[in-house]
Amino acid sequence: MNTLDSQIIRPTLLLNKQKCINNIEAMIARAQRANARLRPHFKTHQSAEVGNWFKEKGIDCIAVSSVEMAKYFADHGWKDITVAIPVNVREIDLINELASKIQLNLVIESRESILFLESELQHKLGIFIKVDTGYHRCGIPSEAIGSIQILTDLMKESEKLECQGFLAHTGHNYKASDQQEIHKNHSKTLLDLNELKDVFRKEIPNIELSLGDTPACSISEEFYGIDELRPGNFVFYDIMQYVLGSCEENEIAVAMACPVIARNIDRNELVIHGGGVHFSKEFIEADSEGTKLFGSLVRITENGWSEILGGGFLAELSQEHGIIRCSDELFDEFTIGDLIGILPVHSCMTANLMRNYLSTDGNWISTMNS
Amino acid sequence: MNTLDSQIIRPTLLLNKQKCINNIEAMIARAQRANARLRPHFKTHQSAEVGNWFKEKGIDCIAVSSVEMAKYFADHGWKDITVAIPVNVREIDLINELASKIQLNLVIESRESILFLESELQHKLGIFIKVDTGYHRCGIPSEAIGSIQILTDLMKESEKLECQGFLAHTGHNYKASDQQEIHKNHSKTLLDLNELKDVFRKEIPNIELSLGDTPACSISEEFYGIDELRPGNFVFYDIMQYVLGSCEENEIAVAMACPVIARNIDRNELVIHGGGVHFSKEFIEADSEGTKLFGSLVRITENGWSEILGGGFLAELSQEHGIIRCSDELFDEFTIGDLIGILPVHSCMTANLMRNYLSTDGNWISTMNS
Repeated sequence: MNTLDSQIIRPTLLLNKQKCINNIEAMIARAQRANARLRPHFKTHQSAEVGNWFKEKGIDCIAVSSVEMAKYFADHGWKDITVAIPVNVREIDLINELASKIQLNLVIESRESILFLESELQHKLGIFIKVDTGYHRCGIPSEAIGSIQILTDLMKESEKLECQGFLAHTGHNYKASDQQEIHKNHSKTLLDLNELKDVFRKEIPNIELSLGDTPACSISEEFYGIDELRPGNFVFYDIMQYVLGSCEENEIAVAMACPVIARNIDRNELVIHGGGVHFSKEFIEADSEGTKLFGSLVRITENGWSEILGGGFLAELSQEHGIIRCSDELFDEFTIGDLIGILPVHSCMTANLMRNYLSTDGNWISTMNS
Repeated sequence: MNTLDSQIIRPTLLLNKQKCINNIEAMIARAQRANARLRPHFKTHQSAEVGNWFKEKGIDCIAVSSVEMAKYFADHGWKDITVAIPVNVREIDLINELASKIQLNLVIESRESILFLESELQHKLGIFIKVDTGYHRCGIPSEAIGSIQILTDLMKESEKLECQGFLAHTGHNYKASDQQEIHKNHSKTLLDLNELKDVFRKEIPNIELSLGDTPACSISEEFYGIDELRPGNFVFYDIMQYVLGSCEENEIAVAMACPVIARNIDRNELVIHGGGVHFSKEFIEADSEGTKLFGSLVRITENGWSEILGGGFLAELSQEHGIIRCSDELFDEFTIGDLIGILPVHSCMTANLMRNYLSTDGNWISTMNS
């Protein structure tokens, strides 16, 4: 019997394909109810094979977080790709190569970027103007109509840059303290984007609004005026999303399987092979005293993993070691060489580090980093 | 003129070879003064080419942090390798393969690991017992003589496991608040290890003591009784080591070059392409209010980088974006498409993510992750 356990030698990211497909179907249904296109963000999985699960459900456009990632997915047959980060103009050669083959859309927020592209582009591409609706990472403040107008005016005269509308990311939703805050942030993004649509509707033909954060796309049913949803993390979810209320525990589709390499009975600690180079050092604060949580524990089963185990958590990470603090009971359950499962705090960062995944039905899945 | 600037398209880890070689020579000199072998930890650079710079200076043994990394360096000609993490027994097939070809040394701290190896090994290998001198990550407490005796007794009867002595890591030195604390922690490790040497000297022929942390190996001249130094980070150093006082600013041998992709004049923020997937999310607290610092700023020059720029720092990271907060002056200096340099907080984690390096003399250097 070819159980998972016998296939795992070192830290391994397990992926439950059925859970992924359920998550994909649920988001497709939500986008349909919102009457919006789903353009899933593929930075989470970075895998052509996982991408195909979307394709099989009818998805034909995606977002990515770098021009290199756009190239990888273009090479795997995707024909409509938005690079959802302000354009790095140094990538112009690869941008030109991709724009000659597919519908490539870039994101800009500055006059300089537009002038550069206008001068260096050899092919047409779509442009979204990045607007800031409260996250304050990047984008033009949505109320700065004058600054936005400068950009739309520049594009009006361009034969290569086709302004497609406005793109926002309610990234502050990942730091929300409860669902009410997510709804509030999301409402402001909706209001701001729709106001821009009203202002620029006449001068930008077929103007579109694109938003995408997994928390709002997972819990809200309100997307008036929005043409496109762009969430990414939902395909895997993780502990951060579970704590935010974006998903149920059984919707988390990835778990890291790590071998126990040492045990300390005085401190009730299990040491695993599995560190910052596997999980990333992202954590959430588990209590008001600032206790760091790097992952929750599950038992690895014959073809997947159990519910979250009470009485323990991944408490520390160095480069290759992880420290699990646990109850007497859990401590006694695991010995040297056993596998223990960890639901990661941030699946995007963990998946990026792991470079390939083992599906719970026993197949290795490669990524652009394999 | 082939300047660095023209070679850089996306986030790129620059490496100053001469600084690396200076760091290597300084550590070799320190080990010689201490009358100890230098067994550098290669988890920092993970590169056969950087490894050769050590080999050219006469280094012939190394430490690594996984059996896979041991295989990579064995494939590149290294014949004496210690895997300096408690053994993951699931790697037994690769362990046997390597032990048939090179002098392989493993680290153990449990009866279970010894019994497993004794039963499954096909070749001789060296064993270090991991002892804990205060870091409390793993290892048997150095005062637990009885527990250690159980392990040495088991190995006395083994024909495959050759006990080589004791290995410790003063990892709490990375969290020290000043140099005095580093000296204090280091003194305790020296005392503890030497006491063990005295106790087990008779029963373990050629007993050895191995310690290795970059802070103590960089600032102490006191290594009595120690046979082997095992630091790793010193080849690159980083901001964390600079803050600890382990290195001078001009000994930091790596800097990330990142393109500016957006600017926000209201917040004096530069947005770079360069995020958690490039730097890792490791940070240090820059002040008593908990301000996070993910890296310090430098100017990229024709063949390297400048001194640290005052008036700004890398303040936030998401997956692919970084946010630099800076003074008016710095803000005005950088426009869209310019490169800005960042000295990373933790070079080991950053190098692991970047997978290859661009030397400041214009050559690409590959790693085991390339």
